[in-house]
Amino acid sequence: MKENLTFSYDLSKEDKNRRHKSLVVWFFGLSGSGKSTLCNSVEKALFKHNINTVVLDGDSMRKGINKDLGFLESDREENLRRASEISKIINNNGLLTLCSFITPLEKNRKLINSIIGRKNIFWVYLDVPLEECIKRDPKGLYKKAIKGDIKNFTGVSSPFVVPTDFDYVVNKSFDLKTTTDKIVVKILKNINKSK
Amino acid sequence: MKENLTFSYDLSKEDKNRRHKSLVVWFFGLSGSGKSTLCNSVEKALFKHNINTVVLDGDSMRKGINKDLGFLESDREENLRRASEISKIINNNGLLTLCSFITPLEKNRKLINSIIGRKNIFWVYLDVPLEECIKRDPKGLYKKAIKGDIKNFTGVSSPFVVPTDFDYVVNKSFDLKTTTDKIVVKILKNINKSK
Repeated sequence: MKENLTFSYDLSKEDKNRRHKSLVVWFFGLSGSGKSTLCNSVEKALFKHNINTVVLDGDSMRKGINKDLGFLESDREENLRRASEISKIINNNGLLTLCSFITPLEKNRKLINSIIGRKNIFWVYLDVPLEECIKRDPKGLYKKAIKGDIKNFTGVSSPFVVPTDFDYVVNKSFDLKTTTDKIVVKILKNINKSK
Repeated sequence: MKENLTFSYDLSKEDKNRRHKSLVVWFFGLSGSGKSTLCNSVEKALFKHNINTVVLDGDSMRKGINKDLGFLESDREENLRRASEISKIINNNGLLTLCSFITPLEKNRKLINSIIGRKNIFWVYLDVPLEECIKRDPKGLYKKAIKGDIKNFTGVSSPFVVPTDFDYVVNKSFDLKTTTDKIVVKILKNINKSK
């Protein structure tokens, strides 16, 4: 049984891009690197520019659509595949998605690019050394992972591969306001919306 | 390994509802009842009111996020569960989703209500008799299903349970323009946006 596999809607992505273009902003880096903090700050700044965003992160995904998934590598890949497919739908409907996921492997990033399209993504890499993330450990997860109480924890018992391709990189001691402003300027330029 | 399960974003659903409230409009009924046609028409009308929508249907779901699913009853339930979870995320982010799915069973509808919340959904039931849908058969699917070439086809080899709960009902020979206008007036009222 197939449902409506051939129906063609009249409004195109270009139509829906009348106010601004679509974009997927993807924050990635180790746990504790500041992804959510930065994502939250960028969202608030875009909101002031009257740009609505949909946030996808571990929280919104794992509690709902992905509650059938665990934390094996294959489950983590499926978690990212679904986030990408949702972002693609939202992107095709003219809107902005802000994604915040560790995204540890090159194959994860390749999959995301292949689903959403590289040109539709603005990759923000949080380049914070593991030692610093372990020192911060805001949720005590590294402590548990080092003890062995959490398995497959990125940086401890599961790899994080340093990326070579991204659109913006944030270093260890970034100033939240300055970094947010810089990223927002780039996003606004990317979506053809003047300040 | 858990990702950001406790981070709290500053912008609430209420903040994001500054221009208008969120809503999930869910079109349901037999294959051939006119769901996509009506959904398309409602989308265009809302677009003229400067309201952006995200469309979820068999096409956008099955080609992407749900390409791992088949058409067994459990797969169809999972298809609808994921559409509901995506709608919930979009709803929490202040936007409108237009969903178009057969949604044949009461348990499907209960699941959708339980995920998204009944008050967040505007149910549009396309009440078109099976004989009429078979006569129309725009994609030749009923012909195949009656022959036995397609299994689990709603109305032929799989049940469609007549609903008792919906917000708008469309009958057999509806006028597209009039029906669209009436539904749009109700949607605008629902989301607190004056014409």
